[in-house]
Amino acid sequence: MRRLLLISNSTLHDGGYLGHCKEQIKQFLSDKVKTVLFVPYALHDRDWYAGKAKEAFTTFGYDVQSIHQQPDALGAINQAQAIFIGGGNTFRLLKTLYDEKIVEAIRKRVLEDGIPYIGSSAGSNVATASIKTTNDMPIVYPPSFDALKLVPFNINPHYMEPDANNTHMGETREQRIKQFHEYEDSPPVLGLREGCMLLVEDRKATLLGKTDAKLFVRGKDPVEYKVGSDMSFLLQSTL
Amino acid sequence: MRRLLLISNSTLHDGGYLGHCKEQIKQFLSDKVKTVLFVPYALHDRDWYAGKAKEAFTTFGYDVQSIHQQPDALGAINQAQAIFIGGGNTFRLLKTLYDEKIVEAIRKRVLEDGIPYIGSSAGSNVATASIKTTNDMPIVYPPSFDALKLVPFNINPHYMEPDANNTHMGETREQRIKQFHEYEDSPPVLGLREGCMLLVEDRKATLLGKTDAKLFVRGKDPVEYKVGSDMSFLLQSTL
Repeated sequence: MRRLLLISNSTLHDGGYLGHCKEQIKQFLSDKVKTVLFVPYALHDRDWYAGKAKEAFTTFGYDVQSIHQQPDALGAINQAQAIFIGGGNTFRLLKTLYDEKIVEAIRKRVLEDGIPYIGSSAGSNVATASIKTTNDMPIVYPPSFDALKLVPFNINPHYMEPDANNTHMGETREQRIKQFHEYEDSPPVLGLREGCMLLVEDRKATLLGKTDAKLFVRGKDPVEYKVGSDMSFLLQSTL
Repeated sequence: MRRLLLISNSTLHDGGYLGHCKEQIKQFLSDKVKTVLFVPYALHDRDWYAGKAKEAFTTFGYDVQSIHQQPDALGAINQAQAIFIGGGNTFRLLKTLYDEKIVEAIRKRVLEDGIPYIGSSAGSNVATASIKTTNDMPIVYPPSFDALKLVPFNINPHYMEPDANNTHMGETREQRIKQFHEYEDSPPVLGLREGCMLLVEDRKATLLGKTDAKLFVRGKDPVEYKVGSDMSFLLQSTL
């Protein structure tokens, strides 16, 4: 019984940290979870980041332990009731998951033991097939772009359309995703706009939040999906 | 006698391909160069891209050969009078330079033999210390982020300030570069705005073009440099 809540972004404009997804997080974790294991690896200042996560989750009614303050990262994963991986730089995050040798352990806990997994931004990127559709700068070199593979597709968090008034000539987000799909066997990419999230419960996937998502499939025109859409078909593809 | 022309972007808003840097390219190559070797690896459709480069350089008075149409990539580098590496996806470009085993050969031709090197966007990224400050999506996994190391610093092409009216919560370009500088030994990053380029002649570096550049150095506040500025100090750091 795989359970994931994959959030586009942790902070919405004019909202506090995790404010826009508070109700979805509480419903997702329910009162079965008491303590959430937080993974702050995507940011440089882990103590500060852990404090921020703790503050938010405390108001939601959960205790937080940060993995970087535990004596043993692998042991912490194996003991966790639920995992929350926060946003930041996706390359730094994935490299640290490999460095700490916890990639397989997280997979096992989520896919076999069924503990709830919450990801936000970079934390959603690493939950997918690969980090090849992150928006982040490659500030460190991870041993692979393969990610946790908790779902068989990719996510592009903070998805956005180009500003029609902008004269900037850099590639649009859609053009970048199309370049990814120039490669054979590249999986679908779910563009989650800020405010949007994907709930995965075993073989069912549903869009939640305030904004819509755009799905890119190699060789096809992109398709818009509204909040509430059943996205379960995305779980049927194989990696 | 190292000679480089590192351009932020190949096409300015309302301008044609390489239109905004035509005069700088002609002055840089002068009439000593007859034929330019074009490297189209950053884009998927190499034939189309080679045609586009050929069209532009023909109007500037130069012949163009595309490396992908030569029988032997390494031989083409070793015979080249001048090299132009065009923009596109920096990860695809660097991976292909490694796959074709021409990284060391390009270094030797430029740093030892002194042939002129022109890079645009991704082609400027790969000329520097590493591609760790590219804006591109990591659609393929190169064997390293280390680049050609023709200069001992990094470039961020298409550099831009955030739009004050934008409510998007993704990191700004400056925030991303600051994350890069959270790592020790990370070199300076020259943010080249669209329309800006850097001319390197042996130990002298100068900003050319229509727009300014912003320099980021680890642990210091960023500094603006106007067109015409002498940036030679950037060449003194060691890799």
